[in-house]
Amino acid sequence: MDSSSDFIMTSSPKARILLQQCLSARLQVEPPTDQKEGVFVEIGRGLVLYVCFLKGASSDVVNKMVKEALNTKLSTSADGKLCSILELPGDVLIIPQATLGGCLKGKSMQYHRNIAKEDGLELYKQFTTFCEETVQSNEKSKESGRVVKWGTYGNVQVFRCDTNGPYSHLLEY
Amino acid sequence: MDSSSDFIMTSSPKARILLQQCLSARLQVEPPTDQKEGVFVEIGRGLVLYVCFLKGASSDVVNKMVKEALNTKLSTSADGKLCSILELPGDVLIIPQATLGGCLKGKSMQYHRNIAKEDGLELYKQFTTFCEETVQSNEKSKESGRVVKWGTYGNVQVFRCDTNGPYSHLLEY
Repeated sequence: MDSSSDFIMTSSPKARILLQQCLSARLQVEPPTDQKEGVFVEIGRGLVLYVCFLKGASSDVVNKMVKEALNTKLSTSADGKLCSILELPGDVLIIPQATLGGCLKGKSMQYHRNIAKEDGLELYKQFTTFCEETVQSNEKSKESGRVVKWGTYGNVQVFRCDTNGPYSHLLEY
Repeated sequence: MDSSSDFIMTSSPKARILLQQCLSARLQVEPPTDQKEGVFVEIGRGLVLYVCFLKGASSDVVNKMVKEALNTKLSTSADGKLCSILELPGDVLIIPQATLGGCLKGKSMQYHRNIAKEDGLELYKQFTTFCEETVQSNEKSKESGRVVKWGTYGNVQVFRCDTNGPYSHLLEY
């Protein structure tokens, strides 16, 4: 192996998605108050997407992220072949996860690479909208009633999941 | 900001840890057979560590990974302050996760950067041993009966978790 392959020139990432498979997952979208209980969204078998936008992220990157997350062959079909979540078809749960942008400094994580909160919210909205549109315009997903759900940007992500193997993957942009 | 900060010279990572918080988590360590049910390990409140070794990883990196994972202030204490899992103190669940080393190529993930399986197993054993030793030699963890559990290298990671916020963090080495 060429020793130069140990070093690569890379631009600092503008976004990250962590992808995990689930059999079911449940996420709080409204925290409980004195007056009422918390509100949750749920999905069945599918893909959990933890999404983080860093400085320099734009709408272009959002489209690419959604396309790759939904079309990459990360799920296993009934006949044991790898397929995308659109081909499976499966549900999608999107979780905003700013902590994924953290850098270790001493014993603490720093988040100075993360995008400004308002800009991140705007991109997150685009991400969830485009993701839902893509799944709902996919015949196989639509026919079998597959859903896209997402968490509230800026909330604490109270979350439960059950999986046959999370098969965690990281995509960087 | 200096525009040169958009570009960094970085070596290809030799290892990755994905860290998530949990209230409880359960991982299968022996799959079920015709004769008997699957065997699981469980932890209470603590840290889930998904570990992946890439080409070039060595024992040195293992020690650094364990130290940083256990000493970084990622948990929230009863009085609302950030603290490490040793300070909390909390449990630790280690999950081998080779998929974290994947690179997207077209619509598929490729794993050519991952370490050879036998070498990865050796490093994984060192990781789990050093992690358990470190937790068990921490007075606060030992007094409160905190545990370190881990998954079987090479198994499908059948996994369930419940969290008040996964606070996913990625560390690269």
